[in-house]
This record gives sequence, C-alpha cells and structure tokens, in this order.
Amino acid sequence: MEAQSARILLQIFAIFAAAKLLAVVAERVRVPAVVAEIVAGIMIGPQVLGWVKNPQQDWLVTLASIGAIVLLFDVGLNQKLSSIMRVGMMALVVAALGVVIPFFLGYGLLQLTEHSQTEAIFLGAAMVATSVGITARVLQDLNALRTVVATIILSAAVIDDILGMLVLAVVSSLSQGRVNYAEIGSVTVVAVAFTIFTVLVGRRVVRRLGPRVVEFAASNPYFALGLVICLGLSVVAELIRMAAIIGAFLAGLVFSEEEIAPTMREKMHSVSEFLVPFFFVTMGMHMDLSVFAQTQMLLLATMVTLLAILGKLVGCGLGAYRLGWRGAVQVGVGMVPRGEVGLIVALIGLNLGTISSGLYAVVIVMSMVTTLLTPPVLKLLFVRVTPGSSPDADRANP
Amino acid sequence: MEAQSARILLQIFAIFAAAKLLAVVAERVRVPAVVAEIVAGIMIGPQVLGWVKNPQQDWLVTLASIGAIVLLFDVGLNQKLSSIMRVGMMALVVAALGVVIPFFLGYGLLQLTEHSQTEAIFLGAAMVATSVGITARVLQDLNALRTVVATIILSAAVIDDILGMLVLAVVSSLSQGRVNYAEIGSVTVVAVAFTIFTVLVGRRVVRRLGPRVVEFAASNPYFALGLVICLGLSVVAELIRMAAIIGAFLAGLVFSEEEIAPTMREKMHSVSEFLVPFFFVTMGMHMDLSVFAQTQMLLLATMVTLLAILGKLVGCGLGAYRLGWRGAVQVGVGMVPRGEVGLIVALIGLNLGTISSGLYAVVIVMSMVTTLLTPPVLKLLFVRVTPGSSPDADRANP
Repeated sequence: MEAQSARILLQIFAIFAAAKLLAVVAERVRVPAVVAEIVAGIMIGPQVLGWVKNPQQDWLVTLASIGAIVLLFDVGLNQKLSSIMRVGMMALVVAALGVVIPFFLGYGLLQLTEHSQTEAIFLGAAMVATSVGITARVLQDLNALRTVVATIILSAAVIDDILGMLVLAVVSSLSQGRVNYAEIGSVTVVAVAFTIFTVLVGRRVVRRLGPRVVEFAASNPYFALGLVICLGLSVVAELIRMAAIIGAFLAGLVFSEEEIAPTMREKMHSVSEFLVPFFFVTMGMHMDLSVFAQTQMLLLATMVTLLAILGKLVGCGLGAYRLGWRGAVQVGVGMVPRGEVGLIVALIGLNLGTISSGLYAVVIVMSMVTTLLTPPVLKLLFVRVTPGSSPDADRANP
Repeated sequence: MEAQSARILLQIFAIFAAAKLLAVVAERVRVPAVVAEIVAGIMIGPQVLGWVKNPQQDWLVTLASIGAIVLLFDVGLNQKLSSIMRVGMMALVVAALGVVIPFFLGYGLLQLTEHSQTEAIFLGAAMVATSVGITARVLQDLNALRTVVATIILSAAVIDDILGMLVLAVVSSLSQGRVNYAEIGSVTVVAVAFTIFTVLVGRRVVRRLGPRVVEFAASNPYFALGLVICLGLSVVAELIRMAAIIGAFLAGLVFSEEEIAPTMREKMHSVSEFLVPFFFVTMGMHMDLSVFAQTQMLLLATMVTLLAILGKLVGCGLGAYRLGWRGAVQVGVGMVPRGEVGLIVALIGLNLGTISSGLYAVVIVMSMVTTLLTPPVLKLLFVRVTPGSSPDADRANP
C-alpha cells in the first residue's frame, strides 16, 4: 500500500508539473494554456513517454472530474442569471441549430459514402455534443466570461447537453431496434425540470439560507456551503443522466449574484489553479495519436472534421446572427470543440457494435482536431475585439 | 464506467457534506472542527452508516493524502525558518525525550505483563510516532500557528518523524532476526541530509527562482510553482521513506519568508478548506469502534493509552521546561496524538506476525483516544492563554 501511494503521488506530481511548465512556456509563445495542458497529457500519457500508463485509473478519473466540476462552478459564478434570461431565446436557437445542422451533415456524408444507416446516425450523434469545458476555460483565461458572447455560449451549452442526451437516447434505442419514447420523454422532462428548478428555486434558497449559515458559525462556512451545493448538484445531474459539470455550472449560477460571490470566486479560483489541470491533462492522455497513421481513413476523417467545424460554425453562428458578424463567429467557434463528449457517443456505438473501429478512429480525429484548434482561434477572435484583456495589457500593469 | 464515476462522486459529496455539517455544529458547541470531521468519518464509514464502504479505495486514499499534503504545506507557510532555528535545540530535545520515554514506558509495561520481548518492542515503537496533522490543524483553527509553542511542536514533529523511522527500521529488522546497521544508518543520513538540504538550499533556490518565474509569465505562476515544489518534495520524502507530509511542510517552510507568502497562504487556505476534510474523514473511517467491545483487552488498552499520554506529556514537556509550566504542558499535549502513524507501526507488526491481533486492537484504542482527546484539551490550553484568538472574539468582529 505504501509503495502504491508513492507511485500515485509521483504521477500526480508529474501531471501537475508538466501541465504548469508547458502552460507557462505556452503563454510565452501565445498558445492558450489549456492547449498546453492537453499536450502535456499527450506527452506524459501512455502514447508518448508513458509516465502515466493508465488514464482510466479511479484516482485519476476522480481528480479529473473534480477538476471539471471546479472549473464549471467557477465559470457559473461568473455568469449573471439576469444576463442569461436576456439571451435565453437566442441561446436556445443557437443550441438547437448547433445540434440539427451538424447531425444532418454527419448523417448525410455517411449516407453518400458506403456506410449503413445506423453508422450514419451514430456519426451524426457524435458530431452533436459540445465540450463546454474547453471554451469556458479559454474565455476564463482571456478574462472574457462576462461578455454577451460568453453568456450565450454557456447557456447554449447547458441546452446542448440536454439536446445531446436526447439525441443519444434516441440513437441508442434505434440501434437496439425499438425506440422507448416514454423513457426518452421522461428523461428529457426531468433534465429540463432540474435545470429550471435549480436556477429559480435554488437561488431563493441560497438567498435565504446564506445569511443564516454565515451567522451560524464564526468560521464563515459560506465557501463550504458553496462547495457542498456544487458537489450535490453535480451528483444529481449525473444521476439524472446529465453531465456532472452542468450541475456544477448551475450551482455557480445560483451563487453568482449573492453579495459573497466575489470572495467565493477568488477562493474557487485558487482551487481551480490546483485541480483543473488534472481534467485537461487527462483529456490529453485519452487522445490516441496512432489514429493519424491509419491513412485509409484520413480522407474521411478530414471531411468529417471539416463538417463538424462547419456545422457548429454555421448552425450556432446563424442562431446568433443578431450579434453581428464578429459575435456570431465567436459564438460559432466557441461551440466547435467536441472534447471527450463526442468520444463517449462513439464509444457507445463501438460497444454496441453499430460502428466500425475505423469510424471510431474518425471520431477521435474529429474530437482531437476540434478540441485543439478552437482555443487558439478563439483567442485570436477575442483578443482583437477586447485588446484590454490581452496578456500583454495585463503585463503592463502587474 | 459512468455508473462507477457517479458512485464515487456521490461518496465525495457525502464525505464533504458530512464533514462540513458536523464541523459547523461542532463549532457551536465548542468542539474542535477536526474532531467533528473525524467523527463524520466514523459515522459515514463502514462502521456505522456504511455510506462509504471501503476507505482504502485508491481514489479516497489519494484525496486524503493530497488533503494532508495541502494542510502541512499551509502549516509550513506559517512558520518562520528563523524562529525554527532559534528553538532548534529545544525541539531536538523535545523530540528525543518524546521518543525515548514513551518507548520505554510501552516496552516496560509489556515486559511486566506476560508478553514476549518482540511484542514489547513493537508496542514501544507504536507509542513513539506523533501524528502532527491533528495538532497542526487545531493550532491553525485556533490561529496559533505563529506562537513559540507551535514552532517547537512542528519542528519537533519533523525530527520525530526521522527518529520514528529509525525506531521502526530497527524494530522491523530486529523482529526478522538481524539488524542491518548499514542500511538503517544510510536511511537516517539521507533523511537528515534531505531535511537540512531542503531548508537551506531550497530557500535560496526559491529566492533566486521566484522573481524569474513571476517575470516569465503574465499569469503569475508563483502559486503553481509553490504547488509543484510542494508535491515534488512530498514525493521525494516518500521515496526516502519519510512521510510525504514532512516534505510538504518543508516546502511550505521554503516559501514562508518570501514576499509572496501572504498571497500564497490565502490561496492555499482556500484549497485546504476543500481538500483537508478528506484527510480527517478518512482517518475517522479507519477507526474501528468494535475494539472497545473486546473487554478482556480493555484494561491493557487503558493502561497503554494512559502511558502513551503520560510518555509524551512528560517527555516533551520536560524537553520544553524552559517555556514555563503552561508552555511545557502545551508542547506535551500537542505531541500526544498518534493518529494513523501508530496504527501503521502496529499493522507492520501484525503483518510480520510479531504482535497478536489483541495487541493490535490495544494500539487502535490508544491511537483513537489520543487523537480524539488532544484537540479539545489543546483548545482549552490555548484559549486560556490567548483569549484574543478564541472563536467568540472573532465573532464579535466578523
């Protein structure tokens, strides 16, 4: 047991040190820190150096998911519910078009080439989901979480998660022969109800409970209350088949307009600095570089990747056209990364035997490229608009 | 995998929520928060409610040890090397007497009763080690880390860890028939050299490296540098058979007199609020209440526990007699808790077949009682001396 704990501690050190080292170097050459952390994961993961042989070990999966939860709670704390309400309809349209258009692009491409209908449907589904962690982190690093674009992207991501869940449920049951409409309907109703209930009721509860908790103990357990609610909502979200990070985001939202929010943001930011790298490094470890060697798939992979980018860019950009040309592009790009979410869908298809391992490799390529490409593009798009928040400007006034 | 991660997340929520809930209630009835967290562990652990069935799962062991590392880094940040140097000799005497006296009390008791010499030696060894985490946490909660008493206790704990390791090495090899003096000697030299080297050289390195790191990137990676060094020294400490937390403490010490230390302390404190409870809750989960039911052992357990308390109180108090009556008692009490360290020694003896399961139960009782009894007593001793730092005083000026 002692030797085991030393081995784990050594891996934790390797992950954290590699992430921070590459992030600092990346900052120097103006590459987003999150890309550096993912690259750190590819480097020390089983693919290259092999310092961490198995990214699916329980302790690492746990640290990574706590990292993601902490990140999204932090991001939620930076959103205002009133702002979200104002852009709610637009976010709904952005999310809906961002689901429908990529789905049919993926479906259509595989129908035109020699693939089965089920494979076509699964690829469509894998092209639907957005990995909001990447974009949220980039916007956070750029200090742009309070912009209208960020609010739309994050709200759309919540809706996207619900729609993605719906698509996945339909697709999974289709491939098994029969669609259970009652179950799919109830899962959706629960997800929507949870989101609305949390935001509306949670906020009032926190507003009433907060002062009492502060009064109750001298040690000011308000930050602890925030973390308890964050972890609690993450668990509930996961139990009703949503992503845990959506629960964490909603928890952040619930506290975001309280008096104590600035203190909480500062404290959460310290926790983030420590734990979030584990999420992105682990994401990197899951990236399988060997798929690029399968040359016979590269053409299809390239086309799927292009359509995946185009689908979100056009779909989400169209939904946000009222923001003007630049805002619409920012929203579109922000919704592009598929991260681990696309992979999960493809993995389900692979396990069900409905997609080939070749097509699975295609989805991996698409996920990797969209994930690694988005941060630099997003950075360029935002730095041009808000030069005040560029690293160089910060540097002038340390 | 999805279901597994939901189960883990649920347990993380249960641990954190129970710890914070009981801590807040405990504060109301003036019980130290750390006791509440341990009790939370007993409650939700396998002994009582069984919400967490196995406290030895990798992910939980990992979270707990990160919690302990974070705590001791935080504690180290609050110590001044110059203050430690000033009390160095006294700490050495406190540690030495605190090792010698409990050892011979335990050894003597078992020699007088009907036990083998090996068992007597093992019990002596189990009575030697101090679990500095408990005392450090109580002093932190009481805002008393900057007192002379705290500095002596923490310095003595580092020396104690080296001496304890030495005792354990001798005892283990004794029970296997032959003492390998060369190995024991080299391990000790390495430990002492690591401690001195880290403190003296590490400080200079940080002083030189620090400003360069701050200059290198706009994102101010100083906190990250602190965490990297903290994790790195923890790994090294563990690799050379010391406790990881001693490495973390030394890392804190290295940064404690830098200009940036106050910021770092604040950030670490936020991280602590989140992660430290996992350490103490897990400690509680390991407490096996059923040992109290073994009535035939209760007399021996009571005597061993009394001698364990007396040994540290007299040994360490004697070493600190120059602080006056009250200071000496504070130091003595602060060194009493055995925590998990005594258990590890006893477990080695049990696995080697050199101590009976009955005697193992005795050590468990001794560890539990010393661990749970110390915080309230320490609190009383400190609150009387420094009424300004009592919770009530804090409460008057929130």
